[in-house]
Amino acid sequence: MHRPQNFPVKDQSNFFHKIGYVFKQPELLQEALTHRSFGYPNNERLEFLGDSALNCAVSALLFKEFPLLPEGNLSRLRANLVNQQALFELASALGLGDLIRLGEGERKSGGHYRPSILANALEAVIGAIYLEGGFIEVENFVNNLYKPLLQDLDLETLGKDPKTMLQEYLQSRRVALPEYTVIATSGEAHRQKFRVECAIAKFNVRAVGEGTSRRRAEQEAAKQAYELIVQY
Amino acid sequence: MHRPQNFPVKDQSNFFHKIGYVFKQPELLQEALTHRSFGYPNNERLEFLGDSALNCAVSALLFKEFPLLPEGNLSRLRANLVNQQALFELASALGLGDLIRLGEGERKSGGHYRPSILANALEAVIGAIYLEGGFIEVENFVNNLYKPLLQDLDLETLGKDPKTMLQEYLQSRRVALPEYTVIATSGEAHRQKFRVECAIAKFNVRAVGEGTSRRRAEQEAAKQAYELIVQY
Repeated sequence: MHRPQNFPVKDQSNFFHKIGYVFKQPELLQEALTHRSFGYPNNERLEFLGDSALNCAVSALLFKEFPLLPEGNLSRLRANLVNQQALFELASALGLGDLIRLGEGERKSGGHYRPSILANALEAVIGAIYLEGGFIEVENFVNNLYKPLLQDLDLETLGKDPKTMLQEYLQSRRVALPEYTVIATSGEAHRQKFRVECAIAKFNVRAVGEGTSRRRAEQEAAKQAYELIVQY
Repeated sequence: MHRPQNFPVKDQSNFFHKIGYVFKQPELLQEALTHRSFGYPNNERLEFLGDSALNCAVSALLFKEFPLLPEGNLSRLRANLVNQQALFELASALGLGDLIRLGEGERKSGGHYRPSILANALEAVIGAIYLEGGFIEVENFVNNLYKPLLQDLDLETLGKDPKTMLQEYLQSRRVALPEYTVIATSGEAHRQKFRVECAIAKFNVRAVGEGTSRRRAEQEAAKQAYELIVQY
């Protein structure tokens, strides 16, 4: 027999503070933090609900944060933000590992730190917030959770180089592709420096990049041009 | 050159009435109803947003409508409700085919009735509702959209037979499996009738099913027992 590890009131209010939401029904949070190995009711149904609520809130966040990004890039970004490893790290930062209730077998084999268990528990907590507080509370929670991650995101993390990004962006708008021109080279043969201009006539944009190869300079120029257009 | 097929004001108010939501920014609805073949801006980004909002609203609907269904069944049900064919039928019922703006090629090749185009446009409309009205309006819209479909759902549509459903339900709660007992047979050898009882001691449930084979009678008894427990 396993005995319920109850959620001490002090830990509860710490946790509520961390997540920025106060549960009116602590038993709902308890359910979200109960792995199926512990018994029934457990967090499997709440995980189902929370998984889709998380996806939706992250989609809305990305949609608003990246107003010019095509759908394919938004999907790729979202996948990076809601995969098991990302959720595991967020769940660990919230201290879910110490709060989750597990059956004895899982407990002894390190379940408190298993990525899948923690990631699922975080989704279940989101499901519980949705159920009790409505979607608006999910949006608040998810926005706070991901704010630091979004600040670190830049074009590189989209998994594409700037020239490709820029080209796809322009193609999706049926705008003529940029022209790259080497405007200067300097330095000796084995350590030359290139200056390349990226021009997009339609937007009246000219951006310059430097690099130790023509290719690198073009990428840098494309990045500058992309950022100019995004602010456009 | 294609000319914009603008959305006549009369059609707009008809459509707003149908969807139960009045757009304050008709240009946002216009964008949701613009296929990429028509030009830019088109509905691809809104589709990204709407797809996840639809998923979330349908998940919540199922979660509340089927309080005893395990996660796996909820997922299966949701997949049936949000797949391309289901969305195509809903989009057709809303008359999206007549409203969507397509490039000339798509228009001539029957794009107005292509399942993928209509399904995606419905998702984009949901994305636009989310953006303008917030998630609460998505929940309203999706609940109205799916109400008739949910009324038709029964255990059969879950894609599992009642005995399996019942067994999974009990296993997830760690309750002893039901016992099936033939309590009567009648009729001649080649057209016998069976009466089977399904007993679940833990819930004090006894349900009876009849059928032309023992197997059929067991399935019927399981179905009755399941429905008793669900009301429990």
